[in-house]
Formats: sequence, C-alpha cells, structure tokens
Amino acid sequence: MKRRSLLSLTAGASLLAGGCAATKTPPATAATDAVQGTGDIGVVIERAAGALTLVNTSRREAIGRVQGLGDLSHASVVFSRDARYAFVFGRDGGLTRVDMLQQRITHRVMQAGNSIGGAISADGRLVVAQNYQPGGIKVFDAATLELLADVPASMPGGERSRVVGLADLPQHRFIYSLFDAEAICIADCSNPRQPRITTLQGIGRQPYDALLSPNGRHYIAGLFGEDGLAMVDLWEEQPRARRILGGYGRGEKPLPVYKMPHLRGWAMAGGRAFLPAIGRHEVLVVDTSTWAEVGRIPVAGQPVFVMARPDGRQVWVNFSVPDYNRVQVIDTVSQRVVQTIEPGKAVLHMEFTPRGESVWISCRDDNRVQVYDTHTRELQASLAVDAPSGIFFTARAQRMGF
Amino acid sequence: MKRRSLLSLTAGASLLAGGCAATKTPPATAATDAVQGTGDIGVVIERAAGALTLVNTSRREAIGRVQGLGDLSHASVVFSRDARYAFVFGRDGGLTRVDMLQQRITHRVMQAGNSIGGAISADGRLVVAQNYQPGGIKVFDAATLELLADVPASMPGGERSRVVGLADLPQHRFIYSLFDAEAICIADCSNPRQPRITTLQGIGRQPYDALLSPNGRHYIAGLFGEDGLAMVDLWEEQPRARRILGGYGRGEKPLPVYKMPHLRGWAMAGGRAFLPAIGRHEVLVVDTSTWAEVGRIPVAGQPVFVMARPDGRQVWVNFSVPDYNRVQVIDTVSQRVVQTIEPGKAVLHMEFTPRGESVWISCRDDNRVQVYDTHTRELQASLAVDAPSGIFFTARAQRMGF
Repeated sequence: MKRRSLLSLTAGASLLAGGCAATKTPPATAATDAVQGTGDIGVVIERAAGALTLVNTSRREAIGRVQGLGDLSHASVVFSRDARYAFVFGRDGGLTRVDMLQQRITHRVMQAGNSIGGAISADGRLVVAQNYQPGGIKVFDAATLELLADVPASMPGGERSRVVGLADLPQHRFIYSLFDAEAICIADCSNPRQPRITTLQGIGRQPYDALLSPNGRHYIAGLFGEDGLAMVDLWEEQPRARRILGGYGRGEKPLPVYKMPHLRGWAMAGGRAFLPAIGRHEVLVVDTSTWAEVGRIPVAGQPVFVMARPDGRQVWVNFSVPDYNRVQVIDTVSQRVVQTIEPGKAVLHMEFTPRGESVWISCRDDNRVQVYDTHTRELQASLAVDAPSGIFFTARAQRMGF
Repeated sequence: MKRRSLLSLTAGASLLAGGCAATKTPPATAATDAVQGTGDIGVVIERAAGALTLVNTSRREAIGRVQGLGDLSHASVVFSRDARYAFVFGRDGGLTRVDMLQQRITHRVMQAGNSIGGAISADGRLVVAQNYQPGGIKVFDAATLELLADVPASMPGGERSRVVGLADLPQHRFIYSLFDAEAICIADCSNPRQPRITTLQGIGRQPYDALLSPNGRHYIAGLFGEDGLAMVDLWEEQPRARRILGGYGRGEKPLPVYKMPHLRGWAMAGGRAFLPAIGRHEVLVVDTSTWAEVGRIPVAGQPVFVMARPDGRQVWVNFSVPDYNRVQVIDTVSQRVVQTIEPGKAVLHMEFTPRGESVWISCRDDNRVQVYDTHTRELQASLAVDAPSGIFFTARAQRMGF
C-alpha cells in the first residue's frame, strides 16, 4: 500500500518534471543517459551514410548514432582530452565536433576541399587538419573550431604541396610530410595564431604516409617515389631525416599493389617493428635499435593494417582485395601466424580495447562489426552497422601520435 | 525589443523548470555538472582526513571532494573500465566505490583488518583486494562489491601469509606474492566464485612488493629477506620464477634504509629499467633483455618512486626523509640528472598526465599539490589539498598492472 502510493507519486512527479524540462533542455531521459563515464566508448565510421555509430566496449553494443557528417569515405577521428568529444575529419574537408554524451554535433566547418586527417595537442586545446586541397595545415581552437592559423604548404614555385602523415608532438608542435616537396615540417604552435615552421628538406621523393612511434621519438615517412623510408629521431638536438630500410618497397619481383598499406598501423613491440611489405604477401620484422630488417613472416595476402595488441604479444593483420575477408594473428615471440579467422566481407579496420582483451573488426560488405576475444579468438559480439570502416576508441585521447 | 522578450521568456522557463526538477531529482546544477567526460579526471588521497579530492587535469583544479573513506594512511586506487568509479583500498581494510561524476560513495565494505591495495580485471567486472590481515585475497563484483570469493593465503602449518604485489593479468587472472611463504601465486578467476590457484614455490625469502612490466610480460618481486629479486616471465608456457639482480639490495657498504622503495614506481623505457637502489643514493639502470645492471646514476637521496614520463624520455625521482623535499629529473638518453626541483615539504607521490606534458606532485606537509610542465619544469598550478599522498588519474583504467 505504502509502496504503491510512492510509485504513483514518483510517476506523477516524473511526468511533471518532464513537461517542464522540455521547454528548456533536452528530455530528462537524454540528460540521465548522458551521465556516464567515457573511458569505454568510441565511434565507428559509417562510410556510406556519413554517420557515426557510437559504441560501448564494456557492454559491446551500439549506444547511439550521429548523422550529417558529410563524405566519410576516408575519415579519421581524434578525441578531446576529457574523452567526451570526437573530432571527425572527412574526406570532403569537413571537420565535425561530436558530443558523444549528448549524441549530437556541436560544431562543424568545411575547412578544405580534400582532407586526409588530423591531430590534437596533448593539452587538448588545438586541433590541426592536414589537407590535400588546398595543400597545407589548418589550426583550430578545439572548443569552438575557430580557425587560428592557415599554414599553406608552399613550394618554391608558388604551388602548394599535399600534406600527409600529420602527428602531434609535445609542446604544441605538429609534424607532417609534404607529398609533392620531399620535405618534413614541424609546426610549433606555441602561439597558435602564428605557428613557426621548421622544414627538413631532401628527405626523399613523395612521402605518402607516416607514423610516430608509440613513445613519440621516431617519425617515419614512407616514400612512394623511391625505395626505403625517411626517419627523424625527434630526441636529437637538431632533428634530421635519414634513410632506413632501403629495399622495403621493392623485393626481388615487385607485385602489383592493390592498396597502399597504412603506415599508422605499424606495430612496435619488444624492440621489433612489424610492418606491411608493399605488394608482397609478407610482414617485415625490423630491429628498432638498428632499423634493419631482421625477418619476414609469410601471410595470406597483401597486408594493409599490421597492428599490435597493446601488450605487444600479438600482431593482427588484415589484407587488401582479393584477400580482405581474412585476418591473421601473429605471435610476436615465435614470429609465426598462429591463427587465421574470417570475420566477414571486406575487412577495413581493426581496433583493440585499451588493455587488449578484445579486438573490434569492421566488415564493410557484411554491414557488421565483429568483436573477438584476442586470447581465445572466439566471437564475443556482432553489431549491425551500415558499411563500417574506421573504429576509434577514446583511449586514443591518452596516447601520442594518434 | 524582440531580443529582450526572448531573454525574459528564457529566464522564466528556467526558474519553472528548476522548481519542478527539485521535487524529483538532484538539483539541476549537480545533474548538469555530472554530464562530463571522464578522460581527464582523477583523485588525490587526503591521508589524514580520510577523503578524496577530485581533480580535473585539463583545468588543473579541484572539482570536488568525497569524505568518509576511513584510514587512508596507505591507500591505493583503481578505476572502473568506464573511468567513472574509483575503487579505494584503505589501510584499515575498507574498500570504497566512489562515483566521481555524482561525487559520492556508492558502496563501501570493511573487507579485512589490514589491507595493502587491489586490482581490477581488464573487463572491469572483478575487483580484487590483497590483505595482510587476515592474509589472502578477496574477489568482489565491481558493480556491487558483493564478495564472490575469499582466498586465504594458507601455509603448510595452517597459518596465513601476508599478501603483497597484486597485479591484474589477462583472462581474469591475478598475480601476487606471499611475504611469509616464499611464493608467487596466480589466481584464475574465470569462475570468480571458485578461483583456481597456481603457486610457484621457493621464489626467495620475504617478497615485500612487486611490479608488472607495462606490457604485462614480466612480474618482478623484491625480496626483503635476501639479495636480488624474483622474476616470472608470464609469456612462457609454464611460468617459473628465476633470480635476477643479485646484489641489488646490498652494495659494498649498506646504508640504513629510511623507507622501502615502491617497486611499482619502476620506470621501463627504451629497453632499460630504472629502479631505486635500496638505501643508497643511486638509481640503478638495468638492461631489460638480460636483466643485468648496466649503470648507476647518483641522486640526491634514497629514492622512493622512480617513475618514467609516459614517453620514457625522462625519469622523475623522489626521496625518503631527510631528502624528501626534492625531486630530480633524469634524462634517459644521457642517463644524467638534468634538474633538481623543490616542490614543497614531504613529497610523497607523483603522477604524470596521460601524454606526459604535466606531472602532479603531492607535498604532504605543505598541504599542496604542485603541477609542473615536464618540458620546461615550470610550475603550472598549485592546489590546496589537506595532507595529500597518492595521486591517481583515470588513464590507469586503460593500462595493465595498475
């Protein structure tokens, strides 16, 4: 009896409060849902729909969807320092700031004609976009997306270079490569309205992508126009570029390349880097103290992403067409493939949970994201997502070079 | 005119909504504050008051306080997978679950008479406490603090051993050492109500603390009763303990030891481990492939915490009495002290922000937490906190062995 009247009262009060709140703020239910930790959430790019599926990695399910992000056919994401906001860089030059708690777009700007990703400073205040067209970088206030600086990648003849391989460095600095200018640049944005640019010239022809090692020490750019890679040791007093891994791109008998591997997927673990051979069905093993190749692991196709589980014990590999329905798992101690799985059609990306107990795999042509236990390789969950590509979890906010 | 009437309307609606909400839910202001990301928050232990100061590392300020946590004279903290809840292990055996968004205690149990810390599983479901008295571990449901298993650390004679050095391993396993029994145990809690225990015997006398390497591969226990340390390579098929660093504790002329160093502070970076010498004014440098000592760095006192900045470029060291007003910064490339700072009286703990741009330092006897830029070593902020000791940021939720 007593309990019953309490329930009635609560229901009545609830309706009343809901009615009031609607005149001023989002519905009470939305506000309640928004009170949640953000350590275990993330986004999946829906590349065809131009939308994000928001996911929770503890419950292993979708928790919402945000639409209206434009062309996400080649999109990437960085996160705010508090892990509440996702900054989405679309191929069409759109930069969108999404509130993952309120599940809505807070700011959106068309900042270029053709863009290829971005980065965020360690203090979370600056977001930088790298652009193909017009070639250069742009610096934004992360809270408002106000443009703070437009830094054209100018070449001697007055033309602009496409920018690739952008990564954040400490002290409001960002590093990137100029595809058309054989150069690596470091932009010091301590004064974000007037960045100071240091340029390393003659690094090699056509750097097409780059990565920063997990500790932020080594910046490595792949060269499309010649063999080998350009590396900069950022811990040196006067950083300079030097060539490593001559022969990386070639091998004895070059194969046709169906898709350029993503350098950013490089796995570094236990003094070894595992990287995709270009065109060959191999993962290369490199000693990270000498940067010499020390082994090759045969795999099932042309590798695209070669990613280390956070503990470095395993490396997971996906492949270009026609082998893109498979994923292989390499044991880094024995340096052998220990399992081949078939998660679904057109595997485009993988993302590990922060401590590595699970991996999420996007299967574009099955409209599925598959979640595997990395120890048992058993399927833990399967989520329906429209044409999923990139998967990004908020733990990236805590790491350099993402 | 039009604008003015709009403002009036908004103000009226706002008051009305506030009145309604108060009958049903917490005040609107509290609910609004609770909608925030949790990637940049943390807690500071107030050891005398038995309270937590909640902090935000983006704004570098205190954002709240939670009291009633009992004896926090030697407390430690782990975080839920979503980075919303802090699990606080008090010296008095109290285990408290704190909601950092609502700024309140959700659950609290007195689970032992004397406790020394705990750990949480990668999936966030199990919290385990390590106890001195009665000696053993206890397994709890992280959502409710329901006791799932009580695992006494029984010895052949029927007595119980004190438990130290607890750390989480993959697949619901936890590793710990028995101070009184010369043993290291691994508890498999796949069935959390019936853990299965594997014991490695004869590891050496009186393990007093232990650490897990950042990749989860090596578990290393310090030995109080004899020279050297016990190490287990957890990637081996049949893990076993072996002795490393004989002479670690002794040196030619032992000094009186004012405070045992915390092993958990060990810094591992670039194939080197930096660890506190016991009793000597030195930081030892160890090659992590051979586990042999390869150098010694003279420092200003007996080191307590020797902690690597997340990128491994710097190691920060604090000291036992009488040198505990200083902190020294070691450059790991040159292996030399590059700066000595004096943050305040009685430096007890340090915590780096996730990407390492700042370090927070607790100065107990000044009732201050000092925040430094790790690159310039300039003071960035100074927070008034009552007798601060341990500082813990939510990025720990993303890492093994914390």
